[in-house]
Amino acid sequence: MKHTCTSAFLSAALALSGHTFASDAVDYPDSYRQWTHVKSMTIHKGHPLETPFLGIHHVYANDKALKGLESHKYEDGASFAFDQLEYRTKDNASTEGPRVLLGLMVKDRARFPKTGGWGYEAWEGDSRTKRLVDDGGVSYHGCHAQRKDQDFVFTEWRD
Amino acid sequence: MKHTCTSAFLSAALALSGHTFASDAVDYPDSYRQWTHVKSMTIHKGHPLETPFLGIHHVYANDKALKGLESHKYEDGASFAFDQLEYRTKDNASTEGPRVLLGLMVKDRARFPKTGGWGYEAWEGDSRTKRLVDDGGVSYHGCHAQRKDQDFVFTEWRD
Repeated sequence: MKHTCTSAFLSAALALSGHTFASDAVDYPDSYRQWTHVKSMTIHKGHPLETPFLGIHHVYANDKALKGLESHKYEDGASFAFDQLEYRTKDNASTEGPRVLLGLMVKDRARFPKTGGWGYEAWEGDSRTKRLVDDGGVSYHGCHAQRKDQDFVFTEWRD
Repeated sequence: MKHTCTSAFLSAALALSGHTFASDAVDYPDSYRQWTHVKSMTIHKGHPLETPFLGIHHVYANDKALKGLESHKYEDGASFAFDQLEYRTKDNASTEGPRVLLGLMVKDRARFPKTGGWGYEAWEGDSRTKRLVDDGGVSYHGCHAQRKDQDFVFTEWRD
């Protein structure tokens, strides 16, 4: 499974390095900063997912995704945003830097039957047009497949 | 200014070590997890504020505080929550651990004239009753005084 994830992330890394793909399968989530913050995690140098996920990422859930976090089943329209920022450590404190990418997964069973009902997309930096997913979300979904038990969502609600 | 901050944090540290003070000046913000996440920061070992702020903290703003972040002026009812969690690093990734404390600052000019119109409180861990502020918020406000230019709020909105 690790291999599958690594492939997904290498795919994203390639995209970040310049190869982008025209796709409008998933819309940019204009309001995600007003969604509910669920959790954060930092990937440091040396981590297998360092490329391209080095930095801190915050996960946000819209109302339908928040509801799904209780049952681990998600209705169409449920969306998670993955907001990845550089994380700079100085004088024993780490603070947020520029955005690396914004990832999104959106549930729509009719539109995304090949990837468990989820559509995947990512945008480079602060761009709303430079898309990073070039395989219809297949590689990202390959990574998320290890959490099929909770409808392919890694994130869990903490109290 | 650093000295003032250190005193405030030592005061909080003493409170965390067992000395709590009965006060109901500020109510526990039941819905803060649904407020807007503004930013996060990690305090590492060796930082001057390590005690008691070691770990990651997330800052959340309610709607009035969010509005104030634009003008740097806050109306009564504006509230910021400071949600501090342990931050555990393993295998080159850092993930959130248990809650250390929940801090809150609430604007109410009539009730808190001695501290710039802001009321300060903190609760230990997941408790909604173990309060950590024992000086009416004076020492915390002494620290925030260095940002008088933006109505005593450190936090700034990032795009």
